[in-house]
Amino acid sequence: MLGFGTVGQGAYRMLADNREAIQRKVGTALEVVRIGVRDPEKPRPVDPELVTTDLESIVSDPAIDVVLELMGGVAPAGSLIEAALAGGKHVVTANKELIAKQGSRLLRIAAEQGLDLHFEAAVGGGIPLIQPLKHQLAGNDVLKLMGILNGTTNYILTKMAEEGAEFQTALEQAQAAGFAEADPKSDVEGYDAQYKLAILCSIAFNREVPPDNVHREGIDAITRRDMQFAELLGFRIKLLGIAESIGDRILARVHPTLVPKEHPLADVRGVYNAVWVQGDFVGDVMFSGKGAGGAPTASAVVGDLIDVCRNIRIGGAGNLGPFEAGSAAVPIEDLRTRFYLRLIVKDRPKTLGCIATIFGNCDISLSAMEMRVIDSGRNLGEIVFLTHPCLESSFHRAVKAIKNLHMVESVANWLRVEQ
Amino acid sequence: MLGFGTVGQGAYRMLADNREAIQRKVGTALEVVRIGVRDPEKPRPVDPELVTTDLESIVSDPAIDVVLELMGGVAPAGSLIEAALAGGKHVVTANKELIAKQGSRLLRIAAEQGLDLHFEAAVGGGIPLIQPLKHQLAGNDVLKLMGILNGTTNYILTKMAEEGAEFQTALEQAQAAGFAEADPKSDVEGYDAQYKLAILCSIAFNREVPPDNVHREGIDAITRRDMQFAELLGFRIKLLGIAESIGDRILARVHPTLVPKEHPLADVRGVYNAVWVQGDFVGDVMFSGKGAGGAPTASAVVGDLIDVCRNIRIGGAGNLGPFEAGSAAVPIEDLRTRFYLRLIVKDRPKTLGCIATIFGNCDISLSAMEMRVIDSGRNLGEIVFLTHPCLESSFHRAVKAIKNLHMVESVANWLRVEQ
Repeated sequence: MLGFGTVGQGAYRMLADNREAIQRKVGTALEVVRIGVRDPEKPRPVDPELVTTDLESIVSDPAIDVVLELMGGVAPAGSLIEAALAGGKHVVTANKELIAKQGSRLLRIAAEQGLDLHFEAAVGGGIPLIQPLKHQLAGNDVLKLMGILNGTTNYILTKMAEEGAEFQTALEQAQAAGFAEADPKSDVEGYDAQYKLAILCSIAFNREVPPDNVHREGIDAITRRDMQFAELLGFRIKLLGIAESIGDRILARVHPTLVPKEHPLADVRGVYNAVWVQGDFVGDVMFSGKGAGGAPTASAVVGDLIDVCRNIRIGGAGNLGPFEAGSAAVPIEDLRTRFYLRLIVKDRPKTLGCIATIFGNCDISLSAMEMRVIDSGRNLGEIVFLTHPCLESSFHRAVKAIKNLHMVESVANWLRVEQ
Repeated sequence: MLGFGTVGQGAYRMLADNREAIQRKVGTALEVVRIGVRDPEKPRPVDPELVTTDLESIVSDPAIDVVLELMGGVAPAGSLIEAALAGGKHVVTANKELIAKQGSRLLRIAAEQGLDLHFEAAVGGGIPLIQPLKHQLAGNDVLKLMGILNGTTNYILTKMAEEGAEFQTALEQAQAAGFAEADPKSDVEGYDAQYKLAILCSIAFNREVPPDNVHREGIDAITRRDMQFAELLGFRIKLLGIAESIGDRILARVHPTLVPKEHPLADVRGVYNAVWVQGDFVGDVMFSGKGAGGAPTASAVVGDLIDVCRNIRIGGAGNLGPFEAGSAAVPIEDLRTRFYLRLIVKDRPKTLGCIATIFGNCDISLSAMEMRVIDSGRNLGEIVFLTHPCLESSFHRAVKAIKNLHMVESVANWLRVEQ
């Protein structure tokens, strides 16, 4: 084992607690022979004899068959995995950033060596996702995939929706409850979900999708007011990762989205994750569960380890294979979707007509509208529009023109809408 | 292929439609060389050269590597699969009845020969269930498993709940919509779910669970009135398959159940299926999707086929292994759960006191109660009780005593309740 944080400790405990059952399933006993850590002084619930700070010694030890990389980060995890594979060791990792950025290259090395490189824990914690997409759903042409891939942001959005909290308050509650980091940037700005969606895309569409090809927006601009309007219009706001194949290319994006209340993703609350997949034959299937935490993530790591060990015993390692070469991403401007737009306007007779004319000129038709007076003294009103599906670039052209209208005080927010 | 009904035709079409992508994933082209049918005269969308009524000739053909058994039923499917395995062929089947009844024996034959016998399609149509339990969740001690395993009954119960239909009307609607057979016994009386739960149990608990060890009750006694009371008390009524390990034994049961509205299974509507699994490390995960139909079931069959073909190419076939020997079932009388009881009573001053005394004498405490006058002329009332968890045998003892009270007109219905 490389790394002994919450996931490493969870995996160690799972291997101990369920030792006999796992041995019966694998057909042989599994033994943790070395645990690589950075700080040797930290007290750990494990025999100190097992612990070393010499990580290289683990990946080069000929007595070791499988390396569990549970450190996270690109360096030194990437080079350690490479060294392990070069030395003929199978690898299980929970490292989403590394797999998103270098998975294709590492999988190629593993395949060339006939070795397993498994990473079920990298996406969705303990929820089986990678392998079901790669195996049981493999006959399908995946048409669309949507997921709640980050528990922290889903916890925050759930708090905002159900308790009427503003973003900052909900974030602080998440931090207090241990569901958000002191520096929440990776979660809140969507980087974590971006890595995970890149990995899921690579598997679902069987081709390399680098994280830079995934459009990314965070949830920090969502307000309680947007939550209220979404509710009124029959939606919930979720940070979704969405991917679809458009012709020969893939459009992948992470952003806050209005999801209809009837959609199964709308019911996914708190720190739960879920992935909804639409295939040409299977129709829609959904997987949900806890997407993070030591024990659920350990469940995925140990599941992978059991698979690897069965493969060592019976054969069949390395059957995942590398991804096929990727193609250019579809730019977000080419997306066709519905939009939500919230404006603060001066409450004048001609306001609505001017805005509607701009939408019409940009070839955008409207599906719903809500108006409220918000400050009768200053004569200010609030208007929310829901559009029918239109081109992203047309929508932004319309918003730019609307912003320039002298009766429009401000564009309070805009969001994409799933149907 | 043995059998060319909706599933067989779906699999054939999937292999044709997604031919190139599947070939890239498997590493070699797949060819359907023979289709075994009963009636050679039926018009079929397939080259007549492929079709034969000589099913034995398929399982003994040395040019065939994999047999897809998609006929259903125990005979002759079972002996054909046995012959195929004896001849060194891998087998993929969608046959729930056969796997539930003889899976353990057939898996042993397959394992002895180092062959694959896959049956993902036997439970939950296209939803990945068997393999995720066997692989990604394999490190867990499964604590409890609950599933909506039959689309027909879930469609009927959804109609009853949402449209206020009585059972018979909803059944007729399901038949008209093609979601129920002309003879609905297998679905409505819970046999279909019983087979599926037996298979899921065998996988989840890694030991043989014959269908006779699964307690079974159908949904035909559910009335609109029960639906209304369930709703009022915060529940929905679903036909659930429920299994849990109690000490060293398994308690498995299929019966209509009151499910709290907050539980994710309560939101599974219409012909959708879903399985909720609680593991000691993963926590709770849920899988959902369309549980039947030609295309979704074909998705699972072709996914299995892809796996088998990868194993042929790379090695690793036969790694599922047979189940371990089973143990005696826990009898339903030993279940501890909550109960719902609906009585028609003569509206007399002492009625409630007498009933409450019986509950108390049987060591059963109550968590909720609803009373209605239903016929003031005849002085009849209706009382619904929800109990706290108690022993099934105690509950039946109480009901028997309550039934004998002269002020109790009838026991209208009773149901088990999940919390």
